Amino acid sequence: KINSDRLWDSLMEMAKIGGTVKGGCCRLALTDLDKQGRELYIKWAEEAGCTVKVDAIGNIMCTRPGEDMSLPPVGTGSHLDTQPTGGKFDGVYGVLSGLEVVRSMNDQGIKTKHPIEISVWTNEEGSRFAPAMMGSGVVSGRFTLEEILDKKDVDGLRLGDELERIGFAGETPVTGRDFHAFFEAHIEQGPYLEAEEKQVGIVTGGQGQRWYNATFMGRESHAGTTPMHLRNDALIASSQLVLKVEEIAKAHPPGCGTVGFMQVTPNSRNTIPGSISMSIDLRHPIDGELTLMDKALTEAIAEIEATGVSVELDPFWYYEPIHFNTECVSAVRKASVDLGYSHMDIIAGAGHDACYVSDFAPTSMIFTPCLNGISHNEIESTTQEECEGGCSVLLNAMLTMAEV
Amino acid sequence: KINSDRLWDSLMEMAKIGGTVKGGCCRLALTDLDKQGRELYIKWAEEAGCTVKVDAIGNIMCTRPGEDMSLPPVGTGSHLDTQPTGGKFDGVYGVLSGLEVVRSMNDQGIKTKHPIEISVWTNEEGSRFAPAMMGSGVVSGRFTLEEILDKKDVDGLRLGDELERIGFAGETPVTGRDFHAFFEAHIEQGPYLEAEEKQVGIVTGGQGQRWYNATFMGRESHAGTTPMHLRNDALIASSQLVLKVEEIAKAHPPGCGTVGFMQVTPNSRNTIPGSISMSIDLRHPIDGELTLMDKALTEAIAEIEATGVSVELDPFWYYEPIHFNTECVSAVRKASVDLGYSHMDIIAGAGHDACYVSDFAPTSMIFTPCLNGISHNEIESTTQEECEGGCSVLLNAMLTMAEV
Ligand SMILES: NC(=O)NCCC(=O)O
Ligand SMILES: NC(=O)NCCC(=O)O
Repeated sequence: KINSDRLWDSLMEMAKIGGTVKGGCCRLALTDLDKQGRELYIKWAEEAGCTVKVDAIGNIMCTRPGEDMSLPPVGTGSHLDTQPTGGKFDGVYGVLSGLEVVRSMNDQGIKTKHPIEISVWTNEEGSRFAPAMMGSGVVSGRFTLEEILDKKDVDGLRLGDELERIGFAGETPVTGRDFHAFFEAHIEQGPYLEAEEKQVGIVTGGQGQRWYNATFMGRESHAGTTPMHLRNDALIASSQLVLKVEEIAKAHPPGCGTVGFMQVTPNSRNTIPGSISMSIDLRHPIDGELTLMDKALTEAIAEIEATGVSVELDPFWYYEPIHFNTECVSAVRKASVDLGYSHMDIIAGAGHDACYVSDFAPTSMIFTPCLNGISHNEIESTTQEECEGGCSVLLNAMLTMAEV
Repeated sequence: KINSDRLWDSLMEMAKIGGTVKGGCCRLALTDLDKQGRELYIKWAEEAGCTVKVDAIGNIMCTRPGEDMSLPPVGTGSHLDTQPTGGKFDGVYGVLSGLEVVRSMNDQGIKTKHPIEISVWTNEEGSRFAPAMMGSGVVSGRFTLEEILDKKDVDGLRLGDELERIGFAGETPVTGRDFHAFFEAHIEQGPYLEAEEKQVGIVTGGQGQRWYNATFMGRESHAGTTPMHLRNDALIASSQLVLKVEEIAKAHPPGCGTVGFMQVTPNSRNTIPGSISMSIDLRHPIDGELTLMDKALTEAIAEIEATGVSVELDPFWYYEPIHFNTECVSAVRKASVDLGYSHMDIIAGAGHDACYVSDFAPTSMIFTPCLNGISHNEIESTTQEECEGGCSVLLNAMLTMAEV
């Protein structure tokens, strides 16, 4: 069992960094607030006896020694960065659960054969810099360090420069990481555990994702003098695609399709929009279905282009559905049963660092319910009891793998 | 006849202030560039022997004395501010034509009974600060000075503060202006003169306009974990309205409907948009049709609200179709005939300062063709010959009314 109050207090303390008036958190990757959050985390980890290292993409590794330091660690971790309208739990719950596991082991004088290692992965959200899960993606080899350091935010700031600026371009190489097993605790961020009244989700895998940037090129022109039939309105074309993305997702249940980002140029109320830049996010747990969604998107764009606005589609990110390691999944299930928590198997709808860690290490995840299934919203909420449940399962699953 | 080269050279010189790589001009109202443009204009007007005053909303009045200074001036003018992706001619052509009229009168030693007055009206575009035609609207009494000084741009900067900052909050009162007659020369900004191969448009009136701000309130939520049927996606709702606005305009020819401005919040690719702010611009030359378009818009919004996203509509600007003074219209027609220019009657699709001046003085306008009917675009283009034509008509119409 873990110390529930201490876990909750740490969550509330961390939430002050970037805390919003609506009770959420805005701590975008590689901002000053991210730096503050990281520094507080390192302070806590060191106080808990961990040695701390930072790698070249800014991942923080906090190690509690094991009896046999030649063995690969049993890992856990998640992220401290949030969405612009983020909550207090998404990601943070995972890294603070990891810390609580170490603190509880210390309290109880538990020694493990394998070292325990908590990772705070860089830019999991993919909001300020796309794509998501960058820190774990670089370590897994999905991305090269160079391509990621070169990513730019919407203001043109370079990720590598921002990492330097906040002092988290570390010296540890991103290569050569290994885990005996890796577990990530996370709030579900969706409605299923709550609907089924389960305390714990045994995450067996994650759905596949495809991310795109689409650029629409129409022609700027006067809103009052340009007859309707002579227009090349980029916003009309992009609006058609927004609705099409919804239609495509609905035609492939339980797939999701979302346009979350859109920029209008010149964004002047009496000028017909000349160009639009927007994001598209398609997801499905079955890869074949995701392929069909991708195909439908391409077809929809061809239809829109026939109206006279040209569209450039950049499919810059894709990963196929993830299947977690059966032994790790069993360890989570066993811990849930042993501790008497109601539970169900579940597929992750979001991307998680664990998805990329599972490329190179046996991995699974532990989900806990969140109120009304709402996340990426300042009102994201969960209870202390729910947090305690997931963290206790994490402790037990890790202990099983780390050999007490 | 006017000095065509001098007019063209002045146009090209002014276009350097805010000149863009694509050959257009970005000189937004009350920016440092607007200040520079105004200062160059005042220098030129003073060199041409005008006395210059600035009023409390920043309108610049340049007066060439008449023989009887107790008589109201014959006025002309337009604006120096541009769209973000503006051209070199929209507005600028009108104020430089006015200057060329004065310069030509000086060259030819012409004396008029009435003074000649050129106005450079503040913020005609309505792009940085909405609505449009603010300077002329304050003078006509359509707007109060106080409400206009309190307008904010998208960054929250107050118009009154920006006016002070660039040194154009003048001392002349905005009240008590009068014109014996007022003429505004302007590029057509639409396709009709070119299509009909006419050199001059005799502008008999302007279409009515309705401007709105619409705010959509949905619910932010995770793009990967929120099932399609549980979403309140503000961008889906606003995209539906963008398409509806087009549909409404097409159902009421020759009406126009445009969404030129849209801001997405939080604008993060994996968060379902929680709120959208957008503009709507509806126009029609017949007021009854414009009323029907307004009604259709309200109905469309009610339908969209039924899908679960709430919409707030702020109809913050409206003016009914404008009919110009028949005597002034005749003066323009006579000048075109006398000078041998092919011409046609035309209705202004855009709003112009002349529309508001016509509230309190006999007014009409002179249109000249523009390439492919394109304006509010950096590629906006017209020829020196076309500029010369409109300016010569302006000179002659003004001379008729000013009594040589
Ligand atoms: N956990 C989470 O919200 N990850 C962000 C990446 C994604 O969009 O799935
Ligand atoms: N002339 C011109 O482009 N005016 C801007 C105001 C409008 O939108 O009509």
